[in-house]
Amino acid sequence: MAYLNGRFLPLEDVRISPLDRGFLFADGIYEVAAVIDGKLVDSASHLARLERSTAAIGIVLPLSLADIEAAQTELVARNGLSEGLVYLQITRGADATRDFIPAPDLQPTLFMFMQDKPLIDLPAVAAGIAVATMPDLRWARRDIKSVGLLAQAMAKQAAKEAGAQEAWMIEDGFVTEGASSTAFIVTDEGIVTRPYSQSVLAGCTGAALTALAQESGIAVIRRPFTVDEALAAKEAFITSASTLCLSVVRIDEQRVGDGAPGPVAMRLRALYIDFARATGV
Amino acid sequence: MAYLNGRFLPLEDVRISPLDRGFLFADGIYEVAAVIDGKLVDSASHLARLERSTAAIGIVLPLSLADIEAAQTELVARNGLSEGLVYLQITRGADATRDFIPAPDLQPTLFMFMQDKPLIDLPAVAAGIAVATMPDLRWARRDIKSVGLLAQAMAKQAAKEAGAQEAWMIEDGFVTEGASSTAFIVTDEGIVTRPYSQSVLAGCTGAALTALAQESGIAVIRRPFTVDEALAAKEAFITSASTLCLSVVRIDEQRVGDGAPGPVAMRLRALYIDFARATGV
Repeated sequence: MAYLNGRFLPLEDVRISPLDRGFLFADGIYEVAAVIDGKLVDSASHLARLERSTAAIGIVLPLSLADIEAAQTELVARNGLSEGLVYLQITRGADATRDFIPAPDLQPTLFMFMQDKPLIDLPAVAAGIAVATMPDLRWARRDIKSVGLLAQAMAKQAAKEAGAQEAWMIEDGFVTEGASSTAFIVTDEGIVTRPYSQSVLAGCTGAALTALAQESGIAVIRRPFTVDEALAAKEAFITSASTLCLSVVRIDEQRVGDGAPGPVAMRLRALYIDFARATGV
Repeated sequence: MAYLNGRFLPLEDVRISPLDRGFLFADGIYEVAAVIDGKLVDSASHLARLERSTAAIGIVLPLSLADIEAAQTELVARNGLSEGLVYLQITRGADATRDFIPAPDLQPTLFMFMQDKPLIDLPAVAAGIAVATMPDLRWARRDIKSVGLLAQAMAKQAAKEAGAQEAWMIEDGFVTEGASSTAFIVTDEGIVTRPYSQSVLAGCTGAALTALAQESGIAVIRRPFTVDEALAAKEAFITSASTLCLSVVRIDEQRVGDGAPGPVAMRLRALYIDFARATGV
């Protein structure tokens, strides 16, 4: 079952107009939240980011955040989903004029569906993942979680062709972030990740995980880092709603640390899963 | 009437899956061609660019270019369209996995519809238009005519709020292009426009118009120009399929030349309309 504009219906029956500005202009915002033990993980953080992103491009949410969360939890319940992802997309709506300037009073399109997939017991937890570096071709407002994801899709495809599971995007010599994750390294200082700015998305999972790190006495340093620093680091890892936290053991075919998942990432992953289970809604 | 994957049907009846990668990832390409006197203008140039854009992102066209043109001319005939635009969009297709990496063997989605609107007799021909300058926030592959148009839509909206009809986007101190047009100035040298690169879209109308300029003895200089140069120029103008060629008479509230459409832009517009009428298909 999926959700479209207030209705629950089978995903294969959901249809939209091709005049939707999400289709014609990538004029839309999305969120992906994890579901663990049948509960939404870190929901308030995802909804707050949804509100920031839609406000940044002037889309007015058709429902309150509480009503959106209620629709999501109903969707989880109707699907009997235990573990997986809830995908949510809101666009400015269908507009027959196809003008760059939207017609006034469009009705936003709100679409949600679920993906049933394991998040906790993944082979990549013990194996770690490889990343491939790619030039960061994205637009300048990466803090807005828009559906304009072609650059990310191209980077992921190129990473796959290079034998990697994620792309780390490079700009002016520094790692910005993963194509669909936040990038971290572990040094003697603590865990290092890029400061919030328009150059990166403010990752919900990363934000929760850094808070957990600090609570457990691990320092969090917000500064850009280079690939050379990452290769010289003790560990590297990524965070996202779909991977939670996974160790990066190779970057462009070169080993990070001893080439195996390290203790800091493993500990933070465990702390995050505890947090998810304790706070899910 | 519109067109979707081989079928002609009323535009209001056309529906697509929200799992289409055009909707979820902006993983699609578009073209807009003018129709004048019931004929497609500069069609071969638009189709060649469609082929370049789709090849750049690895979408295989489901029809030959000749068959696409035949579908477009049939759509024009079925609608009895005399003057307006044919919009075409091709996406990688619907993919239930919603993975950044597309599933193999997706069937692309090919959608077309028409817009009935005057192109030749526009009030803006005699009045000229105002442009507002905006930082160029777009991604690095602007040579690919992707549907990831949120930055352009934001720039157009901001331009409208500043009382202008188009945005000129600025990067590193130079004008890249308009949000949906190519930018030109007229100097003692001839007409000046930015060289082809990944920083700008290769405009079909602009390419045809520069060829017409050269044939009529007007030099074409391909180099970047600044806003100050544009303000000091004799004239400025834009080209696109929907505007053909329009004089720019104000930039950020400052006059260009004497603040009225100039003879070079007017002559090139007339030459372009003659070309369009003589070569339409």
